[in-house]
Parts: sequence; C-alpha cells; structure tokens
Amino acid sequence: MSHYQKLLQIKTAGKSLYKITSKVESVVAESGIETGLCTIFLRHTSASLIIQENADPDVLTDLSNFFAKLVPEDNRLYIHTTEGSDDMPAHIRTVLTKTSEQIPIYRGRLALGTWQGIYIWEHRQRSHQRELLVHISGD
Amino acid sequence: MSHYQKLLQIKTAGKSLYKITSKVESVVAESGIETGLCTIFLRHTSASLIIQENADPDVLTDLSNFFAKLVPEDNRLYIHTTEGSDDMPAHIRTVLTKTSEQIPIYRGRLALGTWQGIYIWEHRQRSHQRELLVHISGD
Amino acid sequence: MSHYQKLLQIKTAGKSLYKITSKVESVVAESGIETGLCTIFLRHTSASLIIQENADPDVLTDLSNFFAKLVPEDNRLYIHTTEGSDDMPAHIRTVLTKTSEQIPIYRGRLALGTWQGIYIWEHRQRSHQRELLVHISGD
Repeated sequence: MSHYQKLLQIKTAGKSLYKITSKVESVVAESGIETGLCTIFLRHTSASLIIQENADPDVLTDLSNFFAKLVPEDNRLYIHTTEGSDDMPAHIRTVLTKTSEQIPIYRGRLALGTWQGIYIWEHRQRSHQRELLVHISGD
Repeated sequence: MSHYQKLLQIKTAGKSLYKITSKVESVVAESGIETGLCTIFLRHTSASLIIQENADPDVLTDLSNFFAKLVPEDNRLYIHTTEGSDDMPAHIRTVLTKTSEQIPIYRGRLALGTWQGIYIWEHRQRSHQRELLVHISGD
Repeated sequence: MSHYQKLLQIKTAGKSLYKITSKVESVVAESGIETGLCTIFLRHTSASLIIQENADPDVLTDLSNFFAKLVPEDNRLYIHTTEGSDDMPAHIRTVLTKTSEQIPIYRGRLALGTWQGIYIWEHRQRSHQRELLVHISGD
C-alpha cells in the first residue's frame, strides 16, 4: 500500500455550494491508486463539506434555505459578533455538516453513487481562498 | 498493510433505523485484519449512517421524532418537490447525519463502545435497495 | 506503510467543549509517522467530536447555546427519560455532530488549519471518563 497527498486551493465567491467532484476525481487519477480510500479535509471552520444530490440544483437551494432558517444570521442571538453577522452562523453550519469526507476508491475511481456529488459549502459572504487537503491511500 | 473491500446490499422497508453492526462485523472477520480501520460508505443521498445507542429502542424513536419535527415533510417549504414530499426532507436529514463512518479495528473486531450500534437511517417512505461499501485497511 | 493505535482516557466534568488538539498531536508525534492519516474515534453515544475555532472562546459558548435551544432538555419531548433529562438530548446532539474525525498528517503533524482545534463535546451533566481511540496510518 502507498499513499498520496495533494493540497487544492478552491476560490469561493460568497455563500454557496461549490461542486468539487471532478477536482477530487483528478487527484485520484493522478495518484494511480486503483483500490483504496480517499479522505478530503477542509482546513477551515466557517466552510464545510457535504456529499449530496448532483442532479437537481433546486436541492442545493432548498438546503441553503433550510440552513438559513435553522441558523439565522442575527447578531442578537450570538456573543461572537465581531467578525460579522455571517461568522458565528458559519461556525454553527460547519458543525452541523462535515470538515472531512471519506470515499472509497474502486477501479481507480471514487466509488460514489450515481446521484452523489461532493460540495464545499462556503458559509461566509465574502470571497475566500479555501484549502482542501486530499489524502489517498491504497494500491 | 493490506486492504479489503466489500459491497453490501441492504434492503430497507420505509423510514426507520436499521441496525447493521453485525453485517459490518462479519466483513471485518472475513478480511482477517486484526488492527486497522473500517470505513463504511453509503452510496446514497436520501439515506444516511449514524452510530448510536444499541440498547433502548426508545432512543431511536426519539431520534426519529426529533428529525421529523426539525425537518418537516411539508412541500410548501421546498422547491424540490417532484420526487415526493419525503424526498427533500430526506436530503436534508442526510446532510445533518453521515454518509460515511470510520471505526478502528482492534484485535480483529470493531472497537465500538459497549453502547454503540451502527445504523442505516432510511429517510424515504418506500422500500429501497441501499448499497453500503465497506473498506478495511490494516494488518 | 505502518499504523499505530492508542486509547486515550479523557475525564470530563459536565457539559462543555474540551480541547484535545495537543493530546492527539502527542500521539501523532509518538507514532513517528510523517505522512498519513489520523482518525479519532469516540467510544460513546452521549458525547461527540467537533473541529472548530480555537481562538475566541465565545464561539464555543455560542455553539453550546445554539444546541441548548435546538435540542431542549425537556423530558416532555422524549420517551427515553429514565437516564435523566440530559440523556436523550445528549444522544441527539451526538447525532448532529461527529463520533469520529479524520485529519491528514503532513510533515509529522496534524494538517489542521490555523484556526482549527479538536474538541470533545461532553453532552452529559455529570463527570464521565471518555475513551478516545486514536488510529494513525502512514509512513
């Protein structure tokens, strides 16, 4: 067994879900690993990862709307307000989703289901450069 | 170090939590790996994984009731409604739980705590065939 | 590739977030592994793991307040009440957060972002001895 690591820089432009499936798939191809495990790790606390439906964009809109209601951007609800009204909600939304995801590799590709896409969920309003560390192990 | 992969087919019959601890434990035994890491990955976006209390079934009922209130099945709340009133809530409930779980292997067995069971949480009403990919690495 | 496992005992004293970054970092150093993956697994169903902001303690307070409102400690809401009014909420809060976290290792250290700390979130009121299994693989 061997392993492979690569740091990806992902530019985000405001609160949204950014599909990164093909970027991660490219690193898997580069690694040359046929059977193994791919871990993606986001080095941030106000953006997160999810694996979700890759077909109907309405699903992503509904997800965003749900989280907007569940974790309101209202400074009166929080003590930590100095970094803007979107910062504390961003931390909470990150806690409710994922900082890392693991996907097995089968025959040289991510073993995702037909409808699964990988997304970075940017929870901050302004643009950010986000670092995603991809770690792959296998044969 | 070596690794082992197996795809399990799990039949679900409506919204419920299905205990799969022994099925995963069987794959660990088959793999012959004594010390390592077991990753389970569900290839779906409207069913999910959790590790929870394996003793009192009331815990599972309370979990289901909590999620039913937190993420209502009410089409007026969502844009994505064409696949039924349980589909968009299923996506949201999946995002709030897990698509993969990792459990270390110690002395040839999953190193779960005494009260931990592994569950597939089916969030759709009708029966589904769910695919769970088990990936094990170690010695 | 090789691997290394260590069981840590963490004493908690009531509902709070306990930073464990340096404890996990110590196990990584002990392992001698330079490039790899660190998995931490909590062997419990009423305490959980998160990776969050390590700078402003107000973030942790806001997180605790948010979860206190989202998952109320009110026995009238639950069937499973025999273990105390904080037990069922503890299970739900665990489901909404993590039982394991994965962090890549780069140059012999956890590849955490600048603001990321690792926390055990104790959801029960009384003191507990919590078991955290650290699994490291790599070279």
